[in-house]
Amino acid sequence: MAHELLLETSFIYDKSVNERFPTVGVIGAGQLARMMVAPASALGINLLLFAQSADDSAAQINSHVIGDYTDLEALKSFAARCDVITFEHELVPLPVIKGLEAAGVRVYPASSAFVYSQDKAEMRKKLANYQAPAWKVITATSEVDQYPLIAKAISGGYDGRGVWKVNSQDELAEVLKHTPKLLIEELISFDSEIAVMVARSPHGQATSWAPTQTVQEDGICTMTITPAPCISDEIAEQAQKLALDIAAEVGVIGVMAVEMFVKGDQLFINELAMRPHNSGHWTIDGSRTSQFEQHLRAILDLPLGEPAMTHEYAVMGNILGGDKADMYRPYLHLMARNPDLKFHQYKKEVRKGRKIGHVTAIGSDLLQLTTDVQHARDYMSGAIDE
Amino acid sequence: MAHELLLETSFIYDKSVNERFPTVGVIGAGQLARMMVAPASALGINLLLFAQSADDSAAQINSHVIGDYTDLEALKSFAARCDVITFEHELVPLPVIKGLEAAGVRVYPASSAFVYSQDKAEMRKKLANYQAPAWKVITATSEVDQYPLIAKAISGGYDGRGVWKVNSQDELAEVLKHTPKLLIEELISFDSEIAVMVARSPHGQATSWAPTQTVQEDGICTMTITPAPCISDEIAEQAQKLALDIAAEVGVIGVMAVEMFVKGDQLFINELAMRPHNSGHWTIDGSRTSQFEQHLRAILDLPLGEPAMTHEYAVMGNILGGDKADMYRPYLHLMARNPDLKFHQYKKEVRKGRKIGHVTAIGSDLLQLTTDVQHARDYMSGAIDE
Repeated sequence: MAHELLLETSFIYDKSVNERFPTVGVIGAGQLARMMVAPASALGINLLLFAQSADDSAAQINSHVIGDYTDLEALKSFAARCDVITFEHELVPLPVIKGLEAAGVRVYPASSAFVYSQDKAEMRKKLANYQAPAWKVITATSEVDQYPLIAKAISGGYDGRGVWKVNSQDELAEVLKHTPKLLIEELISFDSEIAVMVARSPHGQATSWAPTQTVQEDGICTMTITPAPCISDEIAEQAQKLALDIAAEVGVIGVMAVEMFVKGDQLFINELAMRPHNSGHWTIDGSRTSQFEQHLRAILDLPLGEPAMTHEYAVMGNILGGDKADMYRPYLHLMARNPDLKFHQYKKEVRKGRKIGHVTAIGSDLLQLTTDVQHARDYMSGAIDE
Repeated sequence: MAHELLLETSFIYDKSVNERFPTVGVIGAGQLARMMVAPASALGINLLLFAQSADDSAAQINSHVIGDYTDLEALKSFAARCDVITFEHELVPLPVIKGLEAAGVRVYPASSAFVYSQDKAEMRKKLANYQAPAWKVITATSEVDQYPLIAKAISGGYDGRGVWKVNSQDELAEVLKHTPKLLIEELISFDSEIAVMVARSPHGQATSWAPTQTVQEDGICTMTITPAPCISDEIAEQAQKLALDIAAEVGVIGVMAVEMFVKGDQLFINELAMRPHNSGHWTIDGSRTSQFEQHLRAILDLPLGEPAMTHEYAVMGNILGGDKADMYRPYLHLMARNPDLKFHQYKKEVRKGRKIGHVTAIGSDLLQLTTDVQHARDYMSGAIDE
């Protein structure tokens, strides 16, 4: 007798055991949403995703609807099933977020805060009292008389996309051809780059994790080290205070990354990202409360969790797509080599240079941790084969 | 225009990005399966559950089929979608597991090992060389001449069910009425109860976590403390060796709990459980590798992870169902009171005395951790209200 076993995936969120637990709706179903699944499951919070495709990293493992995140009506229908809406990427148009708010939907971060994450010129204006690279918005090369400089798309850039180092007027003209309005910034010859992750709740409770040093290659973060070994305790404290001040000033609800340049004992605000961020992936394995759990707590206005580190250091390495398509077989070698490594697979189609996973090591021997993470990351990517 | 958003929950496990990652099929969808979701998601392992109902703890959040775990044909169809089959409860009939094996399905633990977990008399016979309470199998009161004793159902007991303390011939006669075949055991006046969690892979690699003291009330585990503070380092080492020896002797693949009585410097084997176990829930927050990750690694024959503790102590308290039905609102009080507590909700219908969640605290001040866990556990259950 043939057995027809249907995959059952229907929700029971309307059943009594679940009705007291809120449902968080996440716009986006990439790796950030994927990493929310674990804390949501532990806390008992219902998670529902608004995905672009069933192939999306988080859509593979979590209930979702598929839709277009620029379609306000579709998002309103989605929001009707949720107690609070958040997003895991910065592409949702501001008018759409405002449209949800106008319809009475609770959206965190709110449009009034999110604008400073999405619009880099608005952010620079809002944070005029904080030290930052000199900047202006331009539409023509005639507005510039000093090179080199950094040019940025005002919205939508990430992982080095939408950011250009410009050495001459000719180069600027090239950039303006495809991006007619640019935020240009003074090129800071910084010593290092750090990021501070903060979380803030509607109550105004706020926490921050230890500052993280971010190591960038070709504009893409390849490794983070926490706490940032490149700065003194005083600078670290100052960076955390800065991030908490900015969180209050922009009124963010949820988790935010404040990226900074360090030059001597000075800190320059670089970027804001109002969502769980690559700089905070180490918190899953290295902190009492991960950024993903904290984000859920914050947007639900639950008391925030303890952000203390569980070990002296946490080193995280991004696995970038290379020539290797098989991300499973390397486990045999890497897990045998180091039983301590924590792997995080995003299950995204392998494409050259794409972030497809990360690996974290925690402990007290920074050199060893860094070596282990670099090896694992490069082995997964296919850059080395032993 | 009305928008019809359908919940999309179709699998993409057949897509190229997933085809290199194995699919683990879990028979059962209770809290143990629920707690496998987080490590499976991080490791990228596809998880498919064979649930009894869509209400099951893990079925609420993970793709599943619904079926009868005593139906071999249904399980064969299920297994055809999976690379390896495991189970999270001990109720799957041995002939069914053997039937799967006969059909070429890889099942871990195998029937040859699992029999010692499911049949307490077989376990006692197999482990005759290990110290244990004196025992025999009886069907009549005439076979017994000494009281009190412990009587156990040979299969199927858990959480105090299927275990009776028997003080007299009359009481034994009562038990025999509903359970005509019993394993009776000498009543050991032990000092404490401990459990050692071990993991073993097909390769024969094995690891164990630090021994855990289990605190029982009315036959139900209410709290665990790791490492067991009631025993010396020597006894702890001996207990771990014992558990590893037994794992090899019975040939278990996956995670196993070895429950023991401690009396002076002697250890008596009490029970085996061949699955992630309540005694190991602390490992999620207190160990480099949780029992749930280790179980997945073991049954997939991946190298095992580091079982070292992340902190000096880990204390876990079971949340038992009480009069309170709302398990979410207590978060406001408990999270504010202690930002360090880690909550794990099973999302099971609240029933008196039923395990519906657990809470873990990690750190170095054992008295504080124990106090915090007891408070949180009792507050969640409704036994106290402040």
